[in-house]
Amino acid sequence: MRMVDVIDTKRNGGVLSDEQIDYFIDGVVDGTIPDYQTSALLMATYFNGMNAEETQRLTMDMLHSGDELDLSDIPGIKVDKHSTGGVGDKVSIPLAPLVASLGIVVPMISGRGLGHTGGTLDKLEAIPGFQVEIPEDEFKQILRDVGCIIAGATGNIAPADKKIYALRDVTDTVDSVPLIAGSIMSKKLASGTNALVMDVKTGAGAFMKTDEQAEELARTLVGIGRGAGLNAMAVISDMNQPLGNAIGNALEIQESIEVLKGNGPADLVDLVLTIGSQMVVMAEKAETLDEARTMLEAQIANGEALETFRRMIEAQHGNGDVVNDYTLMPQAKYRIPFLADRSGVITMMKADEVGIASMLLGGGRAAKDDQLDYAVGIMLDKKVGDHVEEGESILTIYADREDVSDIERLLRENILIGDHAEPITLIHKVIE
Amino acid sequence: MRMVDVIDTKRNGGVLSDEQIDYFIDGVVDGTIPDYQTSALLMATYFNGMNAEETQRLTMDMLHSGDELDLSDIPGIKVDKHSTGGVGDKVSIPLAPLVASLGIVVPMISGRGLGHTGGTLDKLEAIPGFQVEIPEDEFKQILRDVGCIIAGATGNIAPADKKIYALRDVTDTVDSVPLIAGSIMSKKLASGTNALVMDVKTGAGAFMKTDEQAEELARTLVGIGRGAGLNAMAVISDMNQPLGNAIGNALEIQESIEVLKGNGPADLVDLVLTIGSQMVVMAEKAETLDEARTMLEAQIANGEALETFRRMIEAQHGNGDVVNDYTLMPQAKYRIPFLADRSGVITMMKADEVGIASMLLGGGRAAKDDQLDYAVGIMLDKKVGDHVEEGESILTIYADREDVSDIERLLRENILIGDHAEPITLIHKVIE
Repeated sequence: MRMVDVIDTKRNGGVLSDEQIDYFIDGVVDGTIPDYQTSALLMATYFNGMNAEETQRLTMDMLHSGDELDLSDIPGIKVDKHSTGGVGDKVSIPLAPLVASLGIVVPMISGRGLGHTGGTLDKLEAIPGFQVEIPEDEFKQILRDVGCIIAGATGNIAPADKKIYALRDVTDTVDSVPLIAGSIMSKKLASGTNALVMDVKTGAGAFMKTDEQAEELARTLVGIGRGAGLNAMAVISDMNQPLGNAIGNALEIQESIEVLKGNGPADLVDLVLTIGSQMVVMAEKAETLDEARTMLEAQIANGEALETFRRMIEAQHGNGDVVNDYTLMPQAKYRIPFLADRSGVITMMKADEVGIASMLLGGGRAAKDDQLDYAVGIMLDKKVGDHVEEGESILTIYADREDVSDIERLLRENILIGDHAEPITLIHKVIE
Repeated sequence: MRMVDVIDTKRNGGVLSDEQIDYFIDGVVDGTIPDYQTSALLMATYFNGMNAEETQRLTMDMLHSGDELDLSDIPGIKVDKHSTGGVGDKVSIPLAPLVASLGIVVPMISGRGLGHTGGTLDKLEAIPGFQVEIPEDEFKQILRDVGCIIAGATGNIAPADKKIYALRDVTDTVDSVPLIAGSIMSKKLASGTNALVMDVKTGAGAFMKTDEQAEELARTLVGIGRGAGLNAMAVISDMNQPLGNAIGNALEIQESIEVLKGNGPADLVDLVLTIGSQMVVMAEKAETLDEARTMLEAQIANGEALETFRRMIEAQHGNGDVVNDYTLMPQAKYRIPFLADRSGVITMMKADEVGIASMLLGGGRAAKDDQLDYAVGIMLDKKVGDHVEEGESILTIYADREDVSDIERLLRENILIGDHAEPITLIHKVIE
């Protein structure tokens, strides 16, 4: 077999055979296929796509290129959740302990943030002592003891994906549904879970800008999951404005704890309960979504969910007292209110630009090795649809520098006040 | 500027700016742009094309990346010819001395063959002693003394094209009109010619399989030439069956000499005279094509064209006596007639497969460093439209091995005899 013929098949709109995909992934891993041929195939795939069978094969080959976590010795149905990433999206953090508090095993492998989106692992590291690199034995022990863990991948997970992703980033072939889906699912399938809920974001702050694109990705992800024997489903949720009120690492941990105390912002709580209910049903702990939701609400009300989070933090070497004392986390030097320059209704609060504002404050990474400032960020006082008076605070900027005029300019351009706002629907669709 | 943004512009169907194209070619030449980004841009270009301005800029940048031959100290209008390549296409060999015999300067930079097509330089090397690598000073002296030369490129011609072509070959991005046109013209413009006739082949044995593709390439080539200040035009000619009767190196030299003696096969002579007439008019030695054709016919009849060829061979260190004694060239051990298995009319004689037959005999290269057998090849006794009796010879196989059953099988499959043949038109179109 020759790689140029594999490229030719895809370039001409054909379907790659299993043997061709195996040859490609084997060659990427052992280095016999040069990067310039890989990037040519990636670009041809960007233009001509892949069908469900090709995407499945690609994913399974990338999965099998590396280590897989075997959780079969831990009893019970393992349920995980994955988000395609957004601004203020801290859902995983309250969700894992909330679901686990019902006796469900939640092994969450998470990642770091880049650009306008934050990363779950980065946020958790705002908690003093919190460790995200957990060896496999300890990972399993935490699952047995606490029921949930949120950590980075251990071992050599999907090295084929690592190599391909690095190339996609510099060859402008990131936004291809089969390549995105293969990358996500090869890593998720390596985590040993039995069931998976995907939260596919759509809108200004999301990778998928339209509902159609988001639905295509969601259906592809669910299809791959099921093809691999996983119980999989997806929620398509709004990412036009940030999720919840907090953007920034320590601020988002604080908000996550508030969710577990029953004081979370409505949209965030709704999404946590929506996804959580699906997970409870998948874990066969409830028969209906309504029943599951009631059970989860009870776990918040009775403090079990918060207690599980505290235990997870401590199991991961963090200071569990943070759940009662937010000042244990880094605190910003300045809290600067951002005031409305007219009265009206918030009509737009562009999620990606608010995310960039938080990144520019130091809360996110512009480049992969940037250091984070855990204290900084933005706390929204108003959201789209809220009425605001001239001079009233729309949000508070948490900064470690006094002059935030650049941030204010960026926010002024991307938070609009008008006379009438189109209502934002949080859950656009559920793909089962 | 970042290469990933250049790729993004083209991937999204945009037009590359001059600055983007300059950045790309500069980066290819100095090695700062890695091959995987170049191949991604090439594949995006395959899908989204380039407009006339982009193609022109690309060509000029590739041209300026290397050495250019300056022929301004040689008086007169310099006229060159380029063919996109075909089977039995030895037009350049009789054409250069024929046109030069009228006092026109013909500096021909030619190439070698690969796959089913032969190369002009390879054919000329069938002449004992003939040199195709000629230093620049000697190149110019031969032009002054003889009026024509057929040689390989000297110096560092279009190194950007060299690098890009090598990548295109292994990333399946060869057949893109702007990339083909840029590659051809960057090299042709480096040869110091003032006028250029392009012979764009169309059909089974050509790179362009349809007249539409051939015309698109021809118009692009002519456009680039004119954009660079060259007097340029193109002929679109048939390559469904081989051109002339001889396929193979020494056999094609012999046939070229026969053309100059007035005994060439009709189709080859017609194409030589058609292209030659254009060159004579471009060189301002005649006002009309008819007048030019009459002049060329006279140069054949009076022996001047043949004499010019003999002088060119000798100037290039070859044995000029070959024009009168073909046995000075390598001779094949076996001449094996290939007989018709039924009576009828030749309806198809697939050019590319006949070319492959000659290659398999040893007359062409399957890989770049294959050694050639100059003696072998195929001499057609019949062409499409000719009547043939069962048992009559369709062609003669010139081989250095006794068993040519593999060649016979290939030819039997690709030379069809039927009851009625569609007539083949040699000149499909002239693009002026």
